[in-house]
Amino acid sequence: MKRLFIFLLTAFSLSAFSQNTDSLVLRKIFGNAITNYEAYNNLGYLCSNTPGRLMGSENSIKALKYLKTYLEGLNCDTVYLQEYKADAWKHNSSRAKLVSTGENYGLSITALGPSGSTPEGGITAEVIEVNGIQELKQMKREDVEGKIVFFNRPVNPTFINTFPMYGDAVDQRARGPQAAAEMGAVAALVRSVTTLNDDNPHTGNTHLSGRRLPAAGIGIVSADRLSNSLKKDKNLKVELNIDTEELNDITTYNLIAEIKGTEKPDEVILLGGHIDSWFNAPGAHDDGAGVVQTADVIRIFKQLNLKNKRTIRFVAFMDEEYSQSGSKVYASSIDTLKEKIIFALESDAGGFAPEGFTMRAKKEHFEQISGFQPLLSPYGITYIRKGGAGVDIYPLKRFGIPLVEFRTSSQRYFDLHHSANDSFDKVNFRELQLGTTCITGLVYLVDKNGL
Amino acid sequence: MKRLFIFLLTAFSLSAFSQNTDSLVLRKIFGNAITNYEAYNNLGYLCSNTPGRLMGSENSIKALKYLKTYLEGLNCDTVYLQEYKADAWKHNSSRAKLVSTGENYGLSITALGPSGSTPEGGITAEVIEVNGIQELKQMKREDVEGKIVFFNRPVNPTFINTFPMYGDAVDQRARGPQAAAEMGAVAALVRSVTTLNDDNPHTGNTHLSGRRLPAAGIGIVSADRLSNSLKKDKNLKVELNIDTEELNDITTYNLIAEIKGTEKPDEVILLGGHIDSWFNAPGAHDDGAGVVQTADVIRIFKQLNLKNKRTIRFVAFMDEEYSQSGSKVYASSIDTLKEKIIFALESDAGGFAPEGFTMRAKKEHFEQISGFQPLLSPYGITYIRKGGAGVDIYPLKRFGIPLVEFRTSSQRYFDLHHSANDSFDKVNFRELQLGTTCITGLVYLVDKNGL
Repeated sequence: MKRLFIFLLTAFSLSAFSQNTDSLVLRKIFGNAITNYEAYNNLGYLCSNTPGRLMGSENSIKALKYLKTYLEGLNCDTVYLQEYKADAWKHNSSRAKLVSTGENYGLSITALGPSGSTPEGGITAEVIEVNGIQELKQMKREDVEGKIVFFNRPVNPTFINTFPMYGDAVDQRARGPQAAAEMGAVAALVRSVTTLNDDNPHTGNTHLSGRRLPAAGIGIVSADRLSNSLKKDKNLKVELNIDTEELNDITTYNLIAEIKGTEKPDEVILLGGHIDSWFNAPGAHDDGAGVVQTADVIRIFKQLNLKNKRTIRFVAFMDEEYSQSGSKVYASSIDTLKEKIIFALESDAGGFAPEGFTMRAKKEHFEQISGFQPLLSPYGITYIRKGGAGVDIYPLKRFGIPLVEFRTSSQRYFDLHHSANDSFDKVNFRELQLGTTCITGLVYLVDKNGL
Repeated sequence: MKRLFIFLLTAFSLSAFSQNTDSLVLRKIFGNAITNYEAYNNLGYLCSNTPGRLMGSENSIKALKYLKTYLEGLNCDTVYLQEYKADAWKHNSSRAKLVSTGENYGLSITALGPSGSTPEGGITAEVIEVNGIQELKQMKREDVEGKIVFFNRPVNPTFINTFPMYGDAVDQRARGPQAAAEMGAVAALVRSVTTLNDDNPHTGNTHLSGRRLPAAGIGIVSADRLSNSLKKDKNLKVELNIDTEELNDITTYNLIAEIKGTEKPDEVILLGGHIDSWFNAPGAHDDGAGVVQTADVIRIFKQLNLKNKRTIRFVAFMDEEYSQSGSKVYASSIDTLKEKIIFALESDAGGFAPEGFTMRAKKEHFEQISGFQPLLSPYGITYIRKGGAGVDIYPLKRFGIPLVEFRTSSQRYFDLHHSANDSFDKVNFRELQLGTTCITGLVYLVDKNGL
C-alpha cells in the first residue's frame, strides 16, 4: 500500500514537472541553487589559488584547467579549450615615494595596464596636479614637460547606480596618461576610480600608444595626502618605479562547455563570464562570480534533468580586462563554424543581490524576453530593460541576437573593482546563488520558448 | 553684473525649491545623504566604543550619551532622555567543552537571554540531540531528565527573503529551552539561527520561567561537530559553564529629539530604531544602522532647511532585544501626555540596500502612503506593502496610526544577527545612506501631505 502510494506520488510529481509550470520549475531551480555550494566553492578556489589571473599569467591557465576539470565532472557533452595567440602584458612591481623638503612617505600605487616601465633607477620628477583631462589640455606644454601628471578628479558620488558613476569618472584613467604623454610628461598617476575611501590602489585599462608612458593608479588616501603636500610644496618630487613587460604572441584559451539540446541542438544559447582578472585582484566579483554562476547553470540543468531543447553553451572568456582578445576570437569562430547562436547572456556586474537584466535586442526579442520578468521577480529581478550588454558578448552583436547582461545591486561593486579588495570574503553565498537562480531561470525560459 | 546674476540664480533656485517639486527635493536629500558621513561615523562610534550595549550595561548608557550630544549639536528643538526603571539581565561568560572517550574539544557557544547560570563548577551531563521541539515532546521524560537538550534543527535556506526563514527557524530557540526545562533537562544548547556556516554563536531571546535553565546558542560548525561525535558516542558528555546575573530595577532611558513643525507642531511624525544590542554584538546592522539613519533624518531636515510643517521626532528606543521595555514605556507616555502621533516608522532590518517599506495601516492611510512609492523607486524602494511593523513601534498600534518598517536586502542579515559578526565593517556607506534617503524621503512626503 505504501509502495503504491509512493509510486503514485512520484508519477504525479513527474507529470507536474513535465507540464513545466514555469513558476514551479523556477522554484525548483532556486531550491537547488540555494542548497548547493559548488559554485561558491569554485569561486573560493579561483580567488585563493588563482588570484591575479591576467591573460598570459600562469594563474590564468591554472584557473582554466581547474574549471575544465570541474565541467568535465558534470558530464557535459562537450568541454574544450579554444586556443589562440595574443599579445599580453605583465606587471612585475610598482612603487612610489614622495620626496619633499618637509616630508618623505610612500604612496600606495599600482600600475595601470599596459603601463610602460620606468627606466633603471626609476623616475624622480615634480608633480603637476590636474582635475581631469580638460584642465591638462588647457595647460602649456612647458608646464607639463618632464613632470608626473597627477589626475586627481574625484568620482561624483551622487549617481544612484554606480556603473554610470564609473562611466562618468573613468575618462581620466582611460585617456589621461596618453594625453599627458603627448604633452611631454614622464609619467602619470591617476586617482583610483572607487567608492571606498581607503588606500587600496585600483588598476584598469588605459589607452597608450607609441612608447608607453609609466602610468599608475593611486589609492584615495595617498591621492589626498599627495594633494595636500602639493599645497605646501609645489616643487615636491615623486620617485616612481614601475616594472612591466610586454609579452608577444602568447598562447591562451577560451574555455567552452555545452549540453546539447534535445529538439533543436543547432540553436545555441550562450552564457558566460570572463576568467581573467587584473594582476592585483583575486577577481571575486570581477568576474569569478559571473564565471561560476554561468557554469552553475550547466550543473543545474544536468542535476534537475531539465532537458534543454536547445544547446546551452558556457564560455569562460579569456582577457576581458586587457584587450578583449578572447571575445573577439570567440565571435570570429562563430562565423567560421557557421553556428546559430540565438541568445547570449553575460554575468559581469558582480555577484551581489540580483536587480535585473539589461539588453540589446530587436523589438520583438525585447518584448518576449522582458515578458519573463514577473516569473523572475520573486528572486530579485525588478526590471528587464534595454541597456548595455557585456563586453565579452558585445562582438556577437553582428549576429542580430539578443545580448543580455545580468545586473546586481551596484553599491559595493566599485569599492572592490580592479583592486586587492575584490576578494572571496566580499561574496555572500545567498546573493551569489540568487543570481545563479535568475540566470538559470532566464535561460530556462528562453530555451523553452525559443526566440 | 556678476553679482546680479548670482542673485537671480539664487532667487530662482529658492523659488524652485519652495514649490517643492517632490522628485527634486528627494534628489537633494539623496545628494546630501550620499556625501555626508555623519551617520556612518556615528555608527562607527557605536560599534567601536559601545559594542554589546544591552540594556543595563555601561555601554548602553555611553551610547545614549554620545548620541544625545550629537543631536544637541544639530540644534534640535528638544533633546532629552526619558528615564524609567526595568529589570535587566547580564551575561558574564559562557563556555562549553565536549568530553568523550575518544575526543575532547571546545564548543563555540554563547548564552541565550536570559539564561540562568550553571552551578559552581559547571554542569557536566549527557546530551540528547533533537530536531526541534516536536521531537523533544514525543520523548519520555526519563530520556531527557538530567541531560543537556541539544536542539539541532537547521534553518531551511529555501526561503527567498530571510526574515520568514528566521521566523520559521526560531521557535526552537524561543521556546525550546523552557520545553526542555519542563521535561527535567539540566541545560539546553540551540543551533544558531543563521545563514552563515561559520562557528560564531548567535544569541537571542528565549522564554524562560521559574528557575531559569542555563541555555546557550551554539555555532554551526560546533553543532555539526557535536552531532557527529554523538553518532560515534551517544554517551559523551558536555561540560557547560554559564555565568549570568539578573539585575533588578535598573535605571535606563529612551533618547528623544525633535524638530518642531512650522504649521502643525502638535502632529508628530515619529521615527527611530533601538540603541541596545546583544552583549556579544557590536550592533552594526542590529540596530546601530537604524538609529543613525533615523537620527540623520533630523540632520538632513535641518541642513537642507526643509521646514517641516509637522513635528519630526526621533526616538532611540532602549531594550528592544531583552524585554522591549523602552517601547512600552514610550507608548505609555504618549497616553499620559495626550500627544498626537500621526505616523511612526522604524528602521530595524539592517542597513543594507533599500528594498521597500512594509506597513500596518488603515486602508486610506495605506493607499496614500503606498502612493509615494514611484517617487522613492529611484533610491531602491520597489514596494510599499502591508506587512509587519517593527517591534519598537508596535505598542503604538493602539493609536490607529500607520506603523511602517523600512526593509532592505535581507540576504546578509542573518549571517550577522545577534553575533560578533554584526560589526561595522559589514556596513556599506552607500547602502546605509541610500536607506537614509528613502526614510527621509518618506518622512518628507508624509509631512508635506499629512495623513
